[in-house]
Amino acid sequence: MTARTLYDLAGADAARRFSPYCWRAKLALGHKGLPFDTVPWRFTEKDAIAMSGQGRVPVLVDGERVVHDSWRIACHLEEAHADRPSLFGGTAARDATRFLNQWTDGVLHLALLPILMGDLFGHVHEQDRDYFRATREERFGRKLEEIGHDREQAIATFQATLAPLRATLEVQPFLGGDTPRYGDYIVLGAFLWARGVSPIKLLETDDPIAAWRDRVAATRSDVLADAVCYPW
Amino acid sequence: MTARTLYDLAGADAARRFSPYCWRAKLALGHKGLPFDTVPWRFTEKDAIAMSGQGRVPVLVDGERVVHDSWRIACHLEEAHADRPSLFGGTAARDATRFLNQWTDGVLHLALLPILMGDLFGHVHEQDRDYFRATREERFGRKLEEIGHDREQAIATFQATLAPLRATLEVQPFLGGDTPRYGDYIVLGAFLWARGVSPIKLLETDDPIAAWRDRVAATRSDVLADAVCYPW
Repeated sequence: MTARTLYDLAGADAARRFSPYCWRAKLALGHKGLPFDTVPWRFTEKDAIAMSGQGRVPVLVDGERVVHDSWRIACHLEEAHADRPSLFGGTAARDATRFLNQWTDGVLHLALLPILMGDLFGHVHEQDRDYFRATREERFGRKLEEIGHDREQAIATFQATLAPLRATLEVQPFLGGDTPRYGDYIVLGAFLWARGVSPIKLLETDDPIAAWRDRVAATRSDVLADAVCYPW
Repeated sequence: MTARTLYDLAGADAARRFSPYCWRAKLALGHKGLPFDTVPWRFTEKDAIAMSGQGRVPVLVDGERVVHDSWRIACHLEEAHADRPSLFGGTAARDATRFLNQWTDGVLHLALLPILMGDLFGHVHEQDRDYFRATREERFGRKLEEIGHDREQAIATFQATLAPLRATLEVQPFLGGDTPRYGDYIVLGAFLWARGVSPIKLLETDDPIAAWRDRVAATRSDVLADAVCYPW
């Protein structure tokens, strides 16, 4: 047991971890070179993370500290382990990364959700299904089956949504610049979410985003090597 | 005459300057505290900027250096005037700002264009109209009148497009963090483009983006005080 424990969303198969926000935290821990254990956690296991004062993962227990929310975890790691490789490259870079974070949460994930919904629901643990359905249907005001009903249209929308990412990766190798930084992990988390639940091929092989995804994944093979998932 | 000259897109009224990319350059010069003159320039005056090796503005003549393209101008100012207040806050922050730059160019501007098209064309100089129509119709594969035909739908799309900006400005006062940086000027340029050609009110008064717009504009009153434009 290391000093660090991450509560990590798991599916019906405890080894299948698909939360994009938990992936951000794991990639950030890898970037810092900090060993950690994960605890598989299901949506309805609110008691297990009650010490965080809220009900969602990721939750990181880092020694005495309990930190929830992927952005707060990244900021915590950056401050508490300032001697390790920087996740952002300074506070101005951290603040400049915030827009990418909010865009990924609100735009990229939203464009992916209708593509993944069917496969995602298929991987949710039996004990979580009623909770998952109720919370998502309330959030989107539609039945799960309606959210995912037009996958072809959703794929076209997703491709259009990727345009500014592609335009960025055409002028620099990483979203962080010459080296992967937390911005890269934010977006890679979305692709790891997809890969965790769905066999769908989201990118053509010659897409600059596919080459970037491979580059980032290669630098974080420490975290990704054992992931239970579909191929890209 | 100062040592710095910016070729700045002008409309039929030479005092009306509306290019979002030229606004970025002017705001960046203001941030650096560098005095500059502008030369009003029309789309068809390619000869006047031939020394830049291409045909679009902004073009900055900074002493011996001729620099074109808003991003390259920002990087030039940051390097050549490193003793002045930083536009980015370091190279990692510069690189982290690139996504916002590409998103604004390709997503935010594209969402604004159909709202502005009619008013914009009305402000284009007579000598530029054929050029403007031909290049825009080729780029978008549609008649100008078709691009701008459904303004109500365009306004709804624009509002949805603003969501990640709003989400960012709900958690920090500027896109650059605690202080305005180049990322703020990138996005303010889009609003200055709109304000330069159209009386349309794009934001409700209680929108966090409206409050941000006022904050950034207040810090750059040096550049904005004499702008010929419509009210926000």
